[in-house]
Amino acid sequence: MPVLVMKFGGTSVATLDRIRRAAKRVGVEVAKGYDVIVIVSAMSGETNKLVGYVEETSPLFDAREYDAVVSSGENVTAGLMALTLQEMDVPARSWQGWQVPLMTTSAHSSARIVDIPTENITRKFGEGMRVAVVAGFQGISPEGRITTLGRGGSDTTAVAFAAAFDAERCDIYTDVDGVYTTDPRICDKARKLDRIAFEEMLELASLGAKVLQTRSVELAMRYKVKLRVLSSFEEQSDEAGTLVCDEEEIMELNVVSGVAHSRDEAKMTLISVADRPGIAAAIFTPLSEAGINVDMIVQNISEEGRTDMTFSCPTNQVARAEEALKKAKEAGEINFHDLVADTNVCKISVVGIGMRSHTGVAAKMFKVLSDEGINIKVITTSEIKISVLIDRKYMELAVQALHDAFELEKAA
Amino acid sequence: MPVLVMKFGGTSVATLDRIRRAAKRVGVEVAKGYDVIVIVSAMSGETNKLVGYVEETSPLFDAREYDAVVSSGENVTAGLMALTLQEMDVPARSWQGWQVPLMTTSAHSSARIVDIPTENITRKFGEGMRVAVVAGFQGISPEGRITTLGRGGSDTTAVAFAAAFDAERCDIYTDVDGVYTTDPRICDKARKLDRIAFEEMLELASLGAKVLQTRSVELAMRYKVKLRVLSSFEEQSDEAGTLVCDEEEIMELNVVSGVAHSRDEAKMTLISVADRPGIAAAIFTPLSEAGINVDMIVQNISEEGRTDMTFSCPTNQVARAEEALKKAKEAGEINFHDLVADTNVCKISVVGIGMRSHTGVAAKMFKVLSDEGINIKVITTSEIKISVLIDRKYMELAVQALHDAFELEKAA
Repeated sequence: MPVLVMKFGGTSVATLDRIRRAAKRVGVEVAKGYDVIVIVSAMSGETNKLVGYVEETSPLFDAREYDAVVSSGENVTAGLMALTLQEMDVPARSWQGWQVPLMTTSAHSSARIVDIPTENITRKFGEGMRVAVVAGFQGISPEGRITTLGRGGSDTTAVAFAAAFDAERCDIYTDVDGVYTTDPRICDKARKLDRIAFEEMLELASLGAKVLQTRSVELAMRYKVKLRVLSSFEEQSDEAGTLVCDEEEIMELNVVSGVAHSRDEAKMTLISVADRPGIAAAIFTPLSEAGINVDMIVQNISEEGRTDMTFSCPTNQVARAEEALKKAKEAGEINFHDLVADTNVCKISVVGIGMRSHTGVAAKMFKVLSDEGINIKVITTSEIKISVLIDRKYMELAVQALHDAFELEKAA
Repeated sequence: MPVLVMKFGGTSVATLDRIRRAAKRVGVEVAKGYDVIVIVSAMSGETNKLVGYVEETSPLFDAREYDAVVSSGENVTAGLMALTLQEMDVPARSWQGWQVPLMTTSAHSSARIVDIPTENITRKFGEGMRVAVVAGFQGISPEGRITTLGRGGSDTTAVAFAAAFDAERCDIYTDVDGVYTTDPRICDKARKLDRIAFEEMLELASLGAKVLQTRSVELAMRYKVKLRVLSSFEEQSDEAGTLVCDEEEIMELNVVSGVAHSRDEAKMTLISVADRPGIAAAIFTPLSEAGINVDMIVQNISEEGRTDMTFSCPTNQVARAEEALKKAKEAGEINFHDLVADTNVCKISVVGIGMRSHTGVAAKMFKVLSDEGINIKVITTSEIKISVLIDRKYMELAVQALHDAFELEKAA
């Protein structure tokens, strides 16, 4: 029988009632003839409680013990989900990571999946079991210790199972009903997308549209797993939610699919840096060593051997970035006249896989912003994305204006 | 290095503060030179919460899923205890049942321990680890599924580890400071015993002195594991608590070690039963099949081929026992004139291993009760115990009078 993977996040299994509701959804798919693999998160709040215990016990905790503690919430949900399905006369059983066994690297708290043997679960499906409920977020290391996959690890677990079992689709049930052209809280014309390409989703996820973990989208793209995002709180049809898929499966590619924004962005400028080969490495190596997530990097026009270097990073890393750069200056590794941090900015991006074959998107974007009197501070582009930093106070205005200009309220 | 097993119950690890306090106790033993195996229960309340989830989800639950869910509380405590010890610079790590692996039978929710391989933990001790923290109450079945050992299973886990590792002693930390000559809430002269023989402890435990699970005492007796019961809430010396040990290790055996009582006892009498061979089996087989825990059994003097048969059972099983017996009567398996249940009784027992070599204990007990005007309804005796059923209203009086008469307030 075809295999379907269904993943339920913490809010979708937060109470016994919600677990029942989720189980009913599973039952619908079983009735359609699928063998279902259900991936569950911990009941919402549980993992945070456990993380709190660990951090209070040991600020510099042993990550192996951290993993052993925080993975237990998923085990509870897995058992309860299996029991709920059994109550509905759906043959089901739970699997913890080590029982699969879901093999990972030894990088505790941020382990990567190495292998998912399918024999055990496949044999059980052969014996009449219809649902394998698997505790998400966890696996075991080669040393036989419990590992966790890091934040959003249950999405990754789901996609990895879908790949391993060659599932027809991987449905991610969450508290939103799909991926939108932009944030509906900012722009009331925001429209739910029926389909979006993996590449677009990656750009949107990393830009703060926190529907799916970036890692799980990457994995889905690599293994061509059809990923559907949908709400566990609404009645569902087969066409509900948003399908994240290969671009070949999207009939009409949008030139622009969405407008993303990120508040959590600061702009830092190193003024008058010696413009010599290797200077970029000299600047960004100490930042990388300090764990700064540098996002945009722009080197301004060079004059008389000096240049300005601008980059963006998360707002809460500004102090650390300043410290790292000043240290590098004191050590003589780099030389700059001044360091200016601007935490009063935001990032706006337009994303669309159709940009590859359409020109003029950037020009249009800049004109729209200019017409609104919004000054652009930094620009970067990729094949399918154009991002700008602007003053934070213009964020809502920019999103609404761009959404209108690219007519995103209309389906392609 | 010699191995010590230390077990901390739910109230002893109920909060992070209490876990710290327990860890300090472990640190003291490590400093003395022991390699320590710590067995932990779930933080108090956790297991009940999980059991509640399961029962609400599925009244007739799959015991395999029940075990997978309810065992998770111990995993959390084990990790937190290991982290706490590490914070105190004591090399420690946690083990879940499947990691040991603690092998059990497949009898989910009441599994029995089959094997505890010692290689992994012993090797870690050899590498400098000083404390192995093991999640109590759980193991794995031959099918690789998680099992639990039933109520009090963590005591049993502790004793089994002590046996497997040939530990010098097994210390059970709990919320009482030892085993008393009688219930201190009933008799203020109750005295803490320094030592008590396994056999005596078994009689006391099964009589309702709920300090140690009967099963763990049986296991300790079989493998001659020295068991110490002590409080986790008091400063401890080497002589704290009560040592439960082989009678050879007790210098002066008490004729009577303690007076036990049990409120939860009902007396049932079958009046005028045909007195023929096989009648006892005919009565007690249906009771056993109905799951009735029959305790005392007394057959009265037979007259003209008829006899009265009296037995005791827990108060809450009276209705079920009546039903089973009436059914057996209707089926023609047994014949009796009347069935009388008396739920207004209690059981009082005096226990002492010295009774084996001393006579007159029973006579003295009956005289003490008679002097207080207490009527004895049923008597049973074993080698080291005399039990009587009396009216419940005399319970406190009987306990105090017997405690005085046998001078239990004085050390042997």
